[in-house]
Amino acid sequence: MTHAEWIREEFPAISKSLGFIYTPAEEIGDRHRKLRELMEAEGMEAFLAVQKMDYFYLSGTAQDALLFVPLDGKPLLMVRRELERARMESPIEHVVGLKSLRELPSLVAEHMGKQPRVLGLEMDILPVRDYLRLQSLFPDSKLVDGSKIIRDIRKIKSPFEIHFMRKAGDIGEKVYQEAGKILRQGMTEIEFGGLLEAAAKKLGHEGLLRVRSFNYEAYSWHVLSGSNGGIVSQSDSPMGGLGLSPAFPVGASRRVMQAREPILVDFGICYHGYQADETRMFSIGKMPRKFIVAYQACRDIHDAVLAETRPGADCESIFLRTLELARALGYEDSYLGPPGLQTKFIAHGIGLELNEYPFLAQGQSYPLEEGMTFAVEPKIVFPGEGSVGLENTVVVTQEGCEILTPMDMDIMEV
Amino acid sequence: MTHAEWIREEFPAISKSLGFIYTPAEEIGDRHRKLRELMEAEGMEAFLAVQKMDYFYLSGTAQDALLFVPLDGKPLLMVRRELERARMESPIEHVVGLKSLRELPSLVAEHMGKQPRVLGLEMDILPVRDYLRLQSLFPDSKLVDGSKIIRDIRKIKSPFEIHFMRKAGDIGEKVYQEAGKILRQGMTEIEFGGLLEAAAKKLGHEGLLRVRSFNYEAYSWHVLSGSNGGIVSQSDSPMGGLGLSPAFPVGASRRVMQAREPILVDFGICYHGYQADETRMFSIGKMPRKFIVAYQACRDIHDAVLAETRPGADCESIFLRTLELARALGYEDSYLGPPGLQTKFIAHGIGLELNEYPFLAQGQSYPLEEGMTFAVEPKIVFPGEGSVGLENTVVVTQEGCEILTPMDMDIMEV
Repeated sequence: MTHAEWIREEFPAISKSLGFIYTPAEEIGDRHRKLRELMEAEGMEAFLAVQKMDYFYLSGTAQDALLFVPLDGKPLLMVRRELERARMESPIEHVVGLKSLRELPSLVAEHMGKQPRVLGLEMDILPVRDYLRLQSLFPDSKLVDGSKIIRDIRKIKSPFEIHFMRKAGDIGEKVYQEAGKILRQGMTEIEFGGLLEAAAKKLGHEGLLRVRSFNYEAYSWHVLSGSNGGIVSQSDSPMGGLGLSPAFPVGASRRVMQAREPILVDFGICYHGYQADETRMFSIGKMPRKFIVAYQACRDIHDAVLAETRPGADCESIFLRTLELARALGYEDSYLGPPGLQTKFIAHGIGLELNEYPFLAQGQSYPLEEGMTFAVEPKIVFPGEGSVGLENTVVVTQEGCEILTPMDMDIMEV
Repeated sequence: MTHAEWIREEFPAISKSLGFIYTPAEEIGDRHRKLRELMEAEGMEAFLAVQKMDYFYLSGTAQDALLFVPLDGKPLLMVRRELERARMESPIEHVVGLKSLRELPSLVAEHMGKQPRVLGLEMDILPVRDYLRLQSLFPDSKLVDGSKIIRDIRKIKSPFEIHFMRKAGDIGEKVYQEAGKILRQGMTEIEFGGLLEAAAKKLGHEGLLRVRSFNYEAYSWHVLSGSNGGIVSQSDSPMGGLGLSPAFPVGASRRVMQAREPILVDFGICYHGYQADETRMFSIGKMPRKFIVAYQACRDIHDAVLAETRPGADCESIFLRTLELARALGYEDSYLGPPGLQTKFIAHGIGLELNEYPFLAQGQSYPLEEGMTFAVEPKIVFPGEGSVGLENTVVVTQEGCEILTPMDMDIMEV
């Protein structure tokens, strides 16, 4: 049996029996309709999606491929590896093999009848070398930045997408429940983090958390205990932790977790590509009152954000009001980080990637819309002592919002 | 206590007590000497390293930063987050804070006394948008591609680097020994993969495997059992596996591993940023003779590659001779993948990233040099049935090579 035969004959049933859900043609059609509307408004004659999560969103396959979307006419999926599997996974009608980028102009001309005069690219992540190559392959096309429009359509989630995020949240609940049984004195942060991830994977977590950036790395084992919780690091986060070495200076470390100190666990789950981000507090024995009170402040800020969350609410205003609230609660100098190192957001959009729109952040003045999903994460940091925080992933509904991460929010004391 | 005070006073002792090893100044000095030699040959007046592993290699810190290296004069490390920590981690003398890219031209002019006429950038991974920004910030500088020279100096590992890779290999050995105790009938591939990773993390594995690419994702849980081992996917690998969903269509799946089938485990370990890549075979009960014989062929090809490995040997020739050997052994149509889908390399360079130089591959005709490190991975794939393979990470020595992944190579039958 050849590989192609096996993929055609056996793969569909096997993958479905193992839980694969494929994106329906209507869902892909809706996304393309929205994309073409924005392309038209921006004067783009075609869009070339090269980034994995962008073309996955627009095609349903994450095989190694490029997706060419003309403003008029059908999209063309060009697959480097593996072609037969991409054909099974994607409802896109026109799927061809691509051996080399050199073939791109002729494939495009054949499909579209001409070369596009204006071609949109994801310039926020496309490497320069590939860009220069595309310039030489399409010498008569004007290459323009299409990042904004693809990020724009991705920011509103469909029920099909929210279903996966809810499933991710359900997995998260089970992992956090398991965490209470796993945590014990004498364990290092990284050992705890590794066991949480093993539990999550067994439940369907895909392991990788995706971020739209060429340098930013996300990971699930963000376990910060005691003074490690007070350490800021390279990530745009109120606290980064110590990490395992200078090469990976964030997240869980080899520190042995102690009794009666705050243990902050910020854990992301990925299911069918869709993520839920969630932070809960743990302690072995009771943590000092200072942290319990600060955690209550995080809950208050969290609740205030959710109370304001509804279509039309302004993202920056919500953020700014949390600053006022933190000040009123006495945490002006520790809310979202130590003085001078405070982050400027209270929530980040989330979906296929951890840094999608909207950002409830300074300078991000635009309204929330129904179907947006974000992770809200008030955190309070005391250098040299520790951190507390809470994080939930929510979806904006017609009336307000729904929490997608249902785990109980009380401190879990073991 | 402020964050800066805590970092200055407590961080060095705490991080060292938790196993952090910092790159010595002499090591960084050697790397810069090599870089400047190549910069001079290429006519670059300065180099700007923005990619995390490039500036980590040249500075010793992986905080969020940019490293500016003038041909004459000392390097300048500009840190976005977190400045005090970068100062502790890096032996670079000139370390300053950077709030916005806008400050770059004045920081550079102040440091260098002028703007560089020719500035090298990592164009293989730098996003277009950042490139266009740099063009506008340095309108009188010619921006040239410096990717090749940074990859060139990184391909030869120092004893300091090889030490970490050997430690990664030692962790790998312990993980594979543990694997024999963990594996049992009724377990899914992903459950097994998750438990292996938890074991690895407890031993110091940093979790992330890094690849120099904006779209390619590496991960440690590559567990392929039975027919899943015969599935090719998006990765440039002889077999990709089923994965967990269309969004993550590679590696371990929810498939329950069966008795008497080949179980291929390709597991990468990262220690202090340095990776060791390793594949071993497992089975629950004896696997069919066909796979045992094919695995012996992989061992023969592996041994043949190692026998040829020494300074001066040509990378492409070694690859081409493995094709001849595979043919002679009767695996022309299954070696490195199914017909039409066979990969064109037998080994990939490895270090801070999984795709460094050298590549023992088609079209890569250059000599091996002492201090190069690569992962050699002969694999044989039968669509619909399964795969076998072996992989070790080795370093080229003066006389030949040394295996850095000491785990026993026999099939582990449980």
